[in-house]
Amino acid sequence: MRVLITGGNGFIGRRLAAALLRSGTVTVDGAGRQPIERMTLFDSVGGAGYPQDERVELVTGDITDRGAVERVAAQADLVWHLAAVVSAAAEADFDLGYRVNVDGTRTLLEALRGTGRRPRVVFASSFAVYGGDMPPAVGDEFHPVPQSSYGAQKAIGELLTADYSRKGFVDGRSLRLPTIVVRPGKPNKAASSFASSIIREPLAGQEVVCPVGQDTAIYILSPRRVTEALLRAMQLPESAWGVNRTLPLPGITTTAAAMVEALARVAGAAVADRIRWQPDPAIQRIVETWPVGAEARRARMLGFTDDGTFDAILLAHIEDELGGTLPGRAQP
Amino acid sequence: MRVLITGGNGFIGRRLAAALLRSGTVTVDGAGRQPIERMTLFDSVGGAGYPQDERVELVTGDITDRGAVERVAAQADLVWHLAAVVSAAAEADFDLGYRVNVDGTRTLLEALRGTGRRPRVVFASSFAVYGGDMPPAVGDEFHPVPQSSYGAQKAIGELLTADYSRKGFVDGRSLRLPTIVVRPGKPNKAASSFASSIIREPLAGQEVVCPVGQDTAIYILSPRRVTEALLRAMQLPESAWGVNRTLPLPGITTTAAAMVEALARVAGAAVADRIRWQPDPAIQRIVETWPVGAEARRARMLGFTDDGTFDAILLAHIEDELGGTLPGRAQP
Repeated sequence: MRVLITGGNGFIGRRLAAALLRSGTVTVDGAGRQPIERMTLFDSVGGAGYPQDERVELVTGDITDRGAVERVAAQADLVWHLAAVVSAAAEADFDLGYRVNVDGTRTLLEALRGTGRRPRVVFASSFAVYGGDMPPAVGDEFHPVPQSSYGAQKAIGELLTADYSRKGFVDGRSLRLPTIVVRPGKPNKAASSFASSIIREPLAGQEVVCPVGQDTAIYILSPRRVTEALLRAMQLPESAWGVNRTLPLPGITTTAAAMVEALARVAGAAVADRIRWQPDPAIQRIVETWPVGAEARRARMLGFTDDGTFDAILLAHIEDELGGTLPGRAQP
Repeated sequence: MRVLITGGNGFIGRRLAAALLRSGTVTVDGAGRQPIERMTLFDSVGGAGYPQDERVELVTGDITDRGAVERVAAQADLVWHLAAVVSAAAEADFDLGYRVNVDGTRTLLEALRGTGRRPRVVFASSFAVYGGDMPPAVGDEFHPVPQSSYGAQKAIGELLTADYSRKGFVDGRSLRLPTIVVRPGKPNKAASSFASSIIREPLAGQEVVCPVGQDTAIYILSPRRVTEALLRAMQLPESAWGVNRTLPLPGITTTAAAMVEALARVAGAAVADRIRWQPDPAIQRIVETWPVGAEARRARMLGFTDDGTFDAILLAHIEDELGGTLPGRAQP
């Protein structure tokens, strides 16, 4: 199997690539267990943090550059489409968001259609497709009413992925991802960036500003579970999808305050005291348009799981990103 | 007020234009009752069947031709965007459907954004956005899972209209229209074309083939009610829309058999006998993916209405298109 991951040099792309390389195989219905022969990470950003492996090649380029996308798509059997302009950036630059998140997705789907081989595609969508009046937990059949350009662009990407699949051009599956927490690295321009920062920075001994109120509820999933979900979505037989190619994923609902309480419990009050609460109305407004929970019945039936508790997410972060230990403390 | 109607030389466009010219004014919140000063009908098709009036100008052009669209959009205050490739045509020519129904809508919205005057836009969407597993009557919050490219393209158009509105580029409103029955004129490439043909052609003394089974249920609205709805959607104050710019309209649920029974009742058994039942699996398949009913609670609260009965639709057709009389019969 030849794998293409767009946004492959991003945080989730690298984790997904590493998981695929570790496993060495993927299971595809009709073809059984297949080895990963080649893996192309396509990204707008270079840098050597991606898995160094002879099967892996990093190609830098623009997802709207048709020629470049056609070249990386030409041989791909399995495609994870993660490349995107994130939420606050897409809100700040309307044209850039549409260019990358809509035109880029269409360019990729057209390139895959052009192969004539009906590649399998997993599209990373988002709970940002929801907005407006919502129940506490959105059901699988609840309508998306996006309140950010990012959400609208992801909803359009889902529709394109589904229609290209229905026409037999690709075998596509879209996952609506909860906010991913805890992301490692630097804060980014996602409005949800705070949800990782308020854990990550204090653990690294740094002060951090939380731009949303303590009661702000969010719906989250850990990097581990997201990676598992991306792998599962690709390996589910096509028959599991039927006419609906879009799946809201399970997550857990928590609040900024509950996350910080867990941080204090696990890492100590001094660590949690590194957070300053200083609401930013622009961020608060975007975050409040997102759903705070979902039923995700169909996803659970298909074997997708959440993290159970925020403590589990926090401990997984410490294990995966901090080597399992906390500075100045015994192992948690 | 300067009016632009895309698809303005089509059947609904002409009816809408005629209704606007008859009224002579539109009511716009903040500005009260305003005269119609100019009206541009933009259409890919020429022909003189549109209302002849000194306020009206027909401009033929392609909705994806940015220059042409910018020219007709430059002065527009009120825009009805009706131009579209219809369902069976969009299914037969994937690229044409995306070019006109998606790229064309975006070209128009970009041109309107470019005016900097925030024009008001009514976008004609469709119940074809729904598909897959559905309840007998879809609720206002039921998710669209399109099972045709036309439906996917209309759903994308709704998302674009809503996002351009949220960003303050236009003041947009999308109406999900039921199947419009009875359309005058010739059969077209809409999969729903039969629903008008089985009434129109027998009344004109012609034999007609019905390509769907007698039990096939459809959700319909008359040209009169659609025209009223397009006018109402434009004249509702912006506050009536809130964060959700998309509205499924009320209609009535009927079946092919019930329509033909009504035809026999009103026009006589000999007229109804002009229908031959000869199912076309391709048409049947598309039609069966559409919802057969909707709750449309929000639309009813906002004053949108259905026709009540199919007899009312039939009698309105005879009145509007056949001068109120049936060949060889007394007035119905």
